[in-house]
Amino acid sequence: MSVLEELQEKYAEFKEKRDWEQFHQPKNIAMSISIEASELMELFQWKDNVSIKEIKQDENLMAGVREELADVILYSLSMAQRLDINIEESVLEKLDENRERFDEETSEEITKELEEWTR
Amino acid sequence: MSVLEELQEKYAEFKEKRDWEQFHQPKNIAMSISIEASELMELFQWKDNVSIKEIKQDENLMAGVREELADVILYSLSMAQRLDINIEESVLEKLDENRERFDEETSEEITKELEEWTR
Amino acid sequence: MSVLEELQEKYAEFKEKRDWEQFHQPKNIAMSISIEASELMELFQWKDNVSIKEIKQDENLMAGVREELADVILYSLSMAQRLDINIEESVLEKLDENRERFDEETSEEITKELEEWTR
Amino acid sequence: MSVLEELQEKYAEFKEKRDWEQFHQPKNIAMSISIEASELMELFQWKDNVSIKEIKQDENLMAGVREELADVILYSLSMAQRLDINIEESVLEKLDENRERFDEETSEEITKELEEWTR
Repeated sequence: MSVLEELQEKYAEFKEKRDWEQFHQPKNIAMSISIEASELMELFQWKDNVSIKEIKQDENLMAGVREELADVILYSLSMAQRLDINIEESVLEKLDENRERFDEETSEEITKELEEWTR
Repeated sequence: MSVLEELQEKYAEFKEKRDWEQFHQPKNIAMSISIEASELMELFQWKDNVSIKEIKQDENLMAGVREELADVILYSLSMAQRLDINIEESVLEKLDENRERFDEETSEEITKELEEWTR
Repeated sequence: MSVLEELQEKYAEFKEKRDWEQFHQPKNIAMSISIEASELMELFQWKDNVSIKEIKQDENLMAGVREELADVILYSLSMAQRLDINIEESVLEKLDENRERFDEETSEEITKELEEWTR
Repeated sequence: MSVLEELQEKYAEFKEKRDWEQFHQPKNIAMSISIEASELMELFQWKDNVSIKEIKQDENLMAGVREELADVILYSLSMAQRLDINIEESVLEKLDENRERFDEETSEEITKELEEWTR
């Protein structure tokens, strides 16, 4: 059993014990992922041009990031489980698609554009 | 190496080849997670009271869900990697916290409240 | 001066007094709108199939909605002001576009589809 | 009739003609506001440290901002109308609250903190 399946099983057990599976319909789980992602983003709202080193030195911030990121992932695992989606497969597939879509030429164009905007 | 580390490594390689790591600052990755989560949610926007069975029979919808979910997870893995966060540990920690926070009594209260609202 | 301009002026005054205009760059304001919209959505997260009448009778819920909606609108007004966008004009333009895009035939198709999904 | 009421009336008319009011339940409208806010944010995703002047010179970007901002506002007006919320009143109330909450001392502390992070 992979770590992903292990985490999914533990979360399913948590919900089953509380009889909460009934409320975790895909539409509501999708809302939960979005809400938790927004809470994660809020932690970085006013932190412009702060280096990764500085972020990692801020213990409070890091505790918040760990927690909100865990929430995003937990709900994502839950969505996958309810809909029988194999996460490993889907992510590998998406990476393949991205590799094709962003071939050398396209990638270079995007890099140029990004460099122009992010100074 | 766990499946999570494997996926993280493959994604890092993809970005490195394109020299895109420079743009993937935590603040921007957090925005990306939120944007992709919103696209995932959009797929369910007008689908009220649709059963999981029906969702799984809708091939177009399922392809969309797989893709947007993969995006949410890819960016989440990227965030974790940039900030040296161990996802497995963080998720297990969050589950422990949830188990404590939602003890039997609290869970039953929440269930009652949820049953009242979701009919 | 229209009510929109009046509200914009009052909000600008609030920010000016605190010297906060410098932080309200369009990218950050866009994040703020998204974060507040997510907080508004969170209020309805587990409220499926609840009638408008029931929502209006829930004083706590309504106070929350009023507050989060005000935040969404305040930041939207701020974005418009910073970029010299005339809200009234933009909204009327968007309505014109929608009227064209959703002609009778298209609208009827969408209605059928929506009726099929939302039962 | 204020400009806000005028816009609300025009949007209600648009929905009525298509018989779409039935789908615009508060929960779904809240999701719509969040989805449109995310699309607005996406326009600024990779634009770090870009001045307002530069944004205003980018016609494509400005057209996108006008459109997505109009969507956020249209759905916000719709939410207010469905729940009999007076937007002008709510926004003025929120501004009063903010003025109290962010008194001189608190504001100065926040400014210092923000200046430290956003360089």
